Amino acid sequence: MMLSDIDLDRIQRRLDALWEIGKTDDGGVTRLAYTDEETEAIEYVCSELDDSFELRTDHLGNVFATPDPDAERSLFLGSHLDSVYNGGRLDGSLGVVVALEAIQTAYAEGDPEVAPTLVIFRGEESSRFGQWAVGSRGALGQLTVEDLSATDQSNVPMWQAMQSQGLTPQNFSEPTIDMDRIAGFLETHIEQGRVLDEADERLGIVSSIRGPVRHRVTVEGDYDHSGATPMTLRRDAIAGGAEMVTEIEAIASDAAESGDLVATVGEFSPVGGAINKVCGEVTLSIDIRSNDEPYRDDVESRVLDSVRSVAEARDLDVSTELVDRSPPVELDDRMGELLTDIVTDLDVPSRTIPSGGGHDAMNVQHAGVPTGMVFVPSVDGISHSPKEETYPEAIREVTAVFARAILEGPPVDG
Amino acid sequence: MMLSDIDLDRIQRRLDALWEIGKTDDGGVTRLAYTDEETEAIEYVCSELDDSFELRTDHLGNVFATPDPDAERSLFLGSHLDSVYNGGRLDGSLGVVVALEAIQTAYAEGDPEVAPTLVIFRGEESSRFGQWAVGSRGALGQLTVEDLSATDQSNVPMWQAMQSQGLTPQNFSEPTIDMDRIAGFLETHIEQGRVLDEADERLGIVSSIRGPVRHRVTVEGDYDHSGATPMTLRRDAIAGGAEMVTEIEAIASDAAESGDLVATVGEFSPVGGAINKVCGEVTLSIDIRSNDEPYRDDVESRVLDSVRSVAEARDLDVSTELVDRSPPVELDDRMGELLTDIVTDLDVPSRTIPSGGGHDAMNVQHAGVPTGMVFVPSVDGISHSPKEETYPEAIREVTAVFARAILEGPPVDG
Repeated sequence: MMLSDIDLDRIQRRLDALWEIGKTDDGGVTRLAYTDEETEAIEYVCSELDDSFELRTDHLGNVFATPDPDAERSLFLGSHLDSVYNGGRLDGSLGVVVALEAIQTAYAEGDPEVAPTLVIFRGEESSRFGQWAVGSRGALGQLTVEDLSATDQSNVPMWQAMQSQGLTPQNFSEPTIDMDRIAGFLETHIEQGRVLDEADERLGIVSSIRGPVRHRVTVEGDYDHSGATPMTLRRDAIAGGAEMVTEIEAIASDAAESGDLVATVGEFSPVGGAINKVCGEVTLSIDIRSNDEPYRDDVESRVLDSVRSVAEARDLDVSTELVDRSPPVELDDRMGELLTDIVTDLDVPSRTIPSGGGHDAMNVQHAGVPTGMVFVPSVDGISHSPKEETYPEAIREVTAVFARAILEGPPVDG
Repeated sequence: MMLSDIDLDRIQRRLDALWEIGKTDDGGVTRLAYTDEETEAIEYVCSELDDSFELRTDHLGNVFATPDPDAERSLFLGSHLDSVYNGGRLDGSLGVVVALEAIQTAYAEGDPEVAPTLVIFRGEESSRFGQWAVGSRGALGQLTVEDLSATDQSNVPMWQAMQSQGLTPQNFSEPTIDMDRIAGFLETHIEQGRVLDEADERLGIVSSIRGPVRHRVTVEGDYDHSGATPMTLRRDAIAGGAEMVTEIEAIASDAAESGDLVATVGEFSPVGGAINKVCGEVTLSIDIRSNDEPYRDDVESRVLDSVRSVAEARDLDVSTELVDRSPPVELDDRMGELLTDIVTDLDVPSRTIPSGGGHDAMNVQHAGVPTGMVFVPSVDGISHSPKEETYPEAIREVTAVFARAILEGPPVDG
C-alpha cells in the first residue's frame, strides 16, 4: 500500500460536503453539539458507507460502523463532527473522513489484520454547553447525570438537546463500547498550533496530551482620578495585574527551557476601566499546561507565589480560584512506535509532539485503550477559525498511515 | 469675619436640597448636562437668592447673579450643578453653594471691597455629550457650532437638549461675560484625589491645572491555542501590552521624583480574549499629565519610545493614536497669594496643590481672568461616586476664605 493509493479527491469531496452543513458567511462552520446540523453531518457520513458496514448508534448518539461486527477485536478510528461557533471545516471532520478513507483503502488494498470500526463521537466541543467531549466520555462511562444538566445560551439543558435529536440518554456509568473488544484507537486532528508548520514537518505523532491547571485571579486596589493621584498613592489594579502577567510569562519561558511547559494569561479584564481613572479591579486567567504533572504543579506554585508577591509589594488584595486541574495523559508507547515505523517506511516528514489541547483520544487512552494520535499541520497555526487550513499532502499521508495500521494491526498485549 | 460666622447648617440644608434633585437609589446623583434635573437645580439655587440679587441667564443657560449689577468691576464666584451618572452630591454643587454662602456672609458681616457675582456654569461634566465644560467655554466665547452637534446616548444633539431647556444658543465666538468687568474668579471643588486627605490638610490652594496628553495604543500579535503554542513561537498581545504597562509605570514613577508628573493606563482591553487562547490584540490607553508642559512632553516621548521598543522586541505590531493634548494652566499668582494670606490668617491647615483634572476655573484663567481655586479633601480620595464625601470643617473654612476674599477684594492690576 502506497501513498498514491489514497483517493485524495474523495476525501476532499467528503470534506466539502460536510463544509456545506452549517457553513457560515465567511467560510467557517457552525455545527454545534447536539444540533440538527451535527445530526445531518453524521447522516451524511453514514450515507457514504456501503452495505458492508454495520451501523450502531449508542444512547448518546455516538456512531460505530464496522464491516466486521463479529470480529473478536477491533481497531477503532475516528473523531467528531461538531464544531465551535464559526470554526474551521477540518477540526473533527478531518479525523472522521480520514478514518473512513483509511478503512475503505485498507479493504481495497488488502486483508486487514484487525477489523476496523469507524467512530463518530458526538459533542466534542464545549462551545454550546461548556461540557467537553460529551460523546467520548459518555461512550466510556465517564459522564454523570449532572453533566447532562448543563445548559446552552438559550437555557436548553443538554439532555433535552439530546432528546430533540431522537436520543434517550441513560445508564451513565456503563460504557457503550465493549471494552474487551476494542483493540486500540486512532485519531487524526489538525494540530491547532504552529509547531509543525514552523518546523516544516507534515505529520506529528502525538506522544502525550498536556494537562491544564487553570486559575482565575482577582486583583483589587483603589479607583482614583488619573490626573489627581500621585504615583506613590496608587493601588492600581491594572499596573499590578500587568506586572503579574510579565512575571508569569518570565517564569513560564524559563521553565519551558528545562521541561515541557506553556503558561498563558488569555483573559485580562479591568472592571470599569476608563482613560481618566486609575483602575481598582482586574480579573485575569492563568492556564498552565505540561505533559509532566509534577513539573507543571511546581511551576504553578511558583506562578501563584509570584502573583501574591506582586500583590503584597503593591498593597493590592488578591484572590485566586482554581478553575480546572486535569492530569496529562501519555498516549500508548507501542501505538506510537507502530505509527513511527509506518511513517518512516512511507518516508513522510514527521516528529513527535505533545498535544496542547484535549481530544477524544485522550479520554479513550485514559480508559486504558492503547491509543495513537497523529496531527496534521495547522497552516500559520490557525484553528477554531474560518481560516483554518492544512496541506493536502498531509491529509494523503495520514490516511495512508492509518490504512497501513489497519492492514498491519495494532500491537498485541503481552 | 471669623470661621464661626459661617452658617454651616444653611450650607448643609442647601446641599441636601440639591441632593434630592436627581438622587439615585444608592445615594448618588444623576443630574446630567442640559436636562430637566440640572435646570431644576439651578432654579432651586436661584430661589435661595433674595430680591437684592439681579439675575441674568445667557444663551447657554449659565446664570450670573449679583446684588450690585452697576458696579464697574465684579469678583465672580461659582461652579457647576450638573453631575456624572451616579456621581457624588458635592462635585460642582459645593462650589455653587459655598459661593452663595460666601457672598451672603460677606454682605452680612461687612461692606465688600468688590461686588461679587454668583456664577452657575452649565454642563461641566462630559458624561452626556462627551463635551467638557460647555457652559464656561461658551461664556468665554470658546465654543464652536460643531461642539454643539455632539450627541448623547439617545442621539440627541446638544443644541436640541439646550432648546428643550428653553435656551436659544447663538453667537458662539462672543463671550457672554463682559470681560472688562470681571475682576477675578474663585471656585472651590472637592479635590477628586487623595493628596489632602492623606496629608491631613483641610484646604488645597490650587497652583495649576495639569494638562493631559492622551494616546490609545493598539497592539497586535497572533491568536494561538494556549496549550499548543510553545512560549518561543508566541506573539502574545496581552503579554506585550502588560510589559508596556509595567514600563510606562516605571518611567512615570521615576519622572514623578524629579518633577510634576502622573501617568496612567486606565483601559486595557484584549479583543476576543479567552482562558484557552494566546490573545492577538489589545488596546490600551495612556494618560500623562503635568503642570510642566515640556517635562510632560519629554516623558511622553520616553513612554512612546518604550511602547515601540517592547513591540519591536516581541515582534508585535503597534499603532498609537493621539486622543488629546491640552496645555497645563497656571492659576493667577496674586490670587494664590491672597488666598494663602487669608488661609494663614484664619489658621486653616492647607497646602498648595496642582489640580489633576480640568475645572471651569481653568477655562476662566485661560481667558486671562485672574483665577483662584481651593480644594476641599475628598475623603479616601473618592470622587464621581455616591461615596464622595468631605469634612464639614473644610466646607466652613473655604466659605470663610471666599467671604474674606470678597470683603478684601481681589488683587488690582498694576
